[in-house]
Amino acid sequence: MKKINVLKPVLVSNQQRARENRKVFDKMNSLVINIIGSPGAGKTSFIKNIVTNLKTKYKILVIEGDIKGQIDSKTISRLGVDVIQINTVTECHLDAFMTAQALGRIKKKYDLVLVENVGNLVCPAEFEIGEDYKLAILSTPEGDDKPLKYPLLFHLARVIVINKCDLLPYVDFGVGDAIRNIRKENPGATIFEVAAKTGAGFDKVCKHLEKEIHARKKKNTR
Amino acid sequence: MKKINVLKPVLVSNQQRARENRKVFDKMNSLVINIIGSPGAGKTSFIKNIVTNLKTKYKILVIEGDIKGQIDSKTISRLGVDVIQINTVTECHLDAFMTAQALGRIKKKYDLVLVENVGNLVCPAEFEIGEDYKLAILSTPEGDDKPLKYPLLFHLARVIVINKCDLLPYVDFGVGDAIRNIRKENPGATIFEVAAKTGAGFDKVCKHLEKEIHARKKKNTR
Repeated sequence: MKKINVLKPVLVSNQQRARENRKVFDKMNSLVINIIGSPGAGKTSFIKNIVTNLKTKYKILVIEGDIKGQIDSKTISRLGVDVIQINTVTECHLDAFMTAQALGRIKKKYDLVLVENVGNLVCPAEFEIGEDYKLAILSTPEGDDKPLKYPLLFHLARVIVINKCDLLPYVDFGVGDAIRNIRKENPGATIFEVAAKTGAGFDKVCKHLEKEIHARKKKNTR
Repeated sequence: MKKINVLKPVLVSNQQRARENRKVFDKMNSLVINIIGSPGAGKTSFIKNIVTNLKTKYKILVIEGDIKGQIDSKTISRLGVDVIQINTVTECHLDAFMTAQALGRIKKKYDLVLVENVGNLVCPAEFEIGEDYKLAILSTPEGDDKPLKYPLLFHLARVIVINKCDLLPYVDFGVGDAIRNIRKENPGATIFEVAAKTGAGFDKVCKHLEKEIHARKKKNTR
């Protein structure tokens, strides 16, 4: 038996579904961010910081994508915002069809929808889910060469967050080298340096998100 | 268009090819280890330590799987052992067919073949390549909950290495919790704690590998 290449038709079908999801999010006037990074890069801690800083000003929904379990959903739920869990079972990424299932469970309008994808630097980048944009998280212990080794995500992401900057004294990671490597793949990306553990750098990230939430609302009410 | 589920036939076909690869490795009398972990978990640094410790006693080949580039191959080549680079281009894992291509380029017999898979905790676990066994690397900054969130790899791996133990004072990682979580998925796994950056813990890993290399030779010469 030969290997069968079905990625292209699956992706085309996924893109159609992503466009339909997009229409639903547009009706809700939501800014939707698809958050992608390695296992343990700090996606959940990143979301915790955003939620803590913005939950009194904006209605926030978090969609948690995990192969198995509800560890992150429970963490986020404790912050008092709505969370929808998607378990992908064997799939290594969220796709537009799984996201559509979550959409069917949304009963309110949200200003901001944060989607935590499955921890994986490769596959989630290939599947649109109806997001406004992809946000990549790179943590300092992973090394500054990762944008060169996993280029697609860093090429596609509009925002790239360098996390765990509190560990810089203890790991081999050059922030300048990382930024240069990111710029090779994506000259226009907005880059932030944060430490989700301490909250450092989140003032800038939140200011940026607030601008985007308002820009999105203006765009839709035109 | 509907999503087409082709994973099962692809895996069956892959397993057949993996068995053929296995026969080739058997003829060479090689212990073949499929090394899997997240991006930046320390797979290359782990291999560097093994090669440095064992290269004078055994013939070692390293097969490097990367989506793009040759960063790790160049690092390993400098240690004076043979390296074969496989670039998967878009694929998120090595499979038996890609490994077969590397096999075609092997001209000598090796005691130990270390295969560094693409950095990914999910997909590489699903594809056999003809290995003796899978070795999983979990680094402390990733968090001690990863065996529960990415269970397949931790279920299948015969050896599990907890790396970056030098960072334990700076990260939220309980070694006891990690081991408990690993044991839930895999009660019989051999677990090592190391710091690839400092070399700590590699005496035990290398002793274990030496035993396995000799056991493999005995098995094949019976």
